[in-house]
Amino acid sequence: MLPERLRRVIELFALLPGVGEKTAQRFALHLASDASRVAEELGRELAELSTQVRPCARCRSLADVTDGEAVCAICRDPRRDARLLCIVHRVQDLLAIERSSAMRGRYFVLGRLLSPLDGIGPDQLPVEALVERVRGDGVAEVILATPPSVDGEATALFLARELSALGVRVSRIASGVPHGGDLEFADQVILGCAIDGRRSMG
Amino acid sequence: MLPERLRRVIELFALLPGVGEKTAQRFALHLASDASRVAEELGRELAELSTQVRPCARCRSLADVTDGEAVCAICRDPRRDARLLCIVHRVQDLLAIERSSAMRGRYFVLGRLLSPLDGIGPDQLPVEALVERVRGDGVAEVILATPPSVDGEATALFLARELSALGVRVSRIASGVPHGGDLEFADQVILGCAIDGRRSMG
Repeated sequence: MLPERLRRVIELFALLPGVGEKTAQRFALHLASDASRVAEELGRELAELSTQVRPCARCRSLADVTDGEAVCAICRDPRRDARLLCIVHRVQDLLAIERSSAMRGRYFVLGRLLSPLDGIGPDQLPVEALVERVRGDGVAEVILATPPSVDGEATALFLARELSALGVRVSRIASGVPHGGDLEFADQVILGCAIDGRRSMG
Repeated sequence: MLPERLRRVIELFALLPGVGEKTAQRFALHLASDASRVAEELGRELAELSTQVRPCARCRSLADVTDGEAVCAICRDPRRDARLLCIVHRVQDLLAIERSSAMRGRYFVLGRLLSPLDGIGPDQLPVEALVERVRGDGVAEVILATPPSVDGEATALFLARELSALGVRVSRIASGVPHGGDLEFADQVILGCAIDGRRSMG
């Protein structure tokens, strides 16, 4: 009962993460009924996204393309400590760490984690680019900030071995009871990590 | 920390109904990291939406523009009973009624409801277009299917008065305990409507 073009827009919206048929329909009808220019501007921006925004050539985060090159704001910032490199799974994780202001170095975005069940092995990780980055920038310490999940831990273990061979210090972010959380509601795995990762207090 | 173009895409996504900053960011990062052509196709479709999809000239639902005209599939379907006209608030409501297969007539989409608090008075309803439609098509019965809310009831009352003057039969969809629902969980307003609207069973 809907116009063909609108049905295609709904199908495309439904490909977004967490968006089902109903929500996609709500988005499409909102934009189609909307008197403002949102649909048009959003459309223009999205159509140009793949040519105007690219993975950063240095860290594989996302960057505006300028003069045919894509280097992100963090990689261009000379105040960032080039000797400290934080490895994350996704751009979202980079943004979360940035919000914490706890990282004064730079980043490297893997884009994927080791996942034998999904058929993702070591040769599908960007190890070469990472090694090149570590060597070229004179990185002294690599912080492995992959998530504290099975795939994240496996990836961290694998990268720790690869990178240690280069003579850099390799560390892993701490995993334990989250600050402000209640021990009563932490499960056995969280508490196990917290106890295994205990720090000496003198 | 994100490319400027991506930030604009996030701002635009956040204008969609029910989408906050976080969800908008998830959509944008998904499309930017996506190797497929979803962003590009979605962008093209959205950019052309306002020129290719328009309110139906007859019922104000949405229709593909063909040869400069927009008439929807329902208004073009000769099997639909032109003498029965169902008035709804939004295109979504039309779709919901269509799914029920309970309506063999045609529709008219108001686009808005009377809402004194939002400053929407009778002169902002498309009454003229509706009257023209009723007269021109020889409509015999109008079903008022505005929602069973304060604004929906007010709109139905107002339209019933306007349309009765034209000599057409005017009816209102029933409001009561939803089929399959439990009386125990129906609130007093629902039960009030159900009892007020009771039907004689002989």
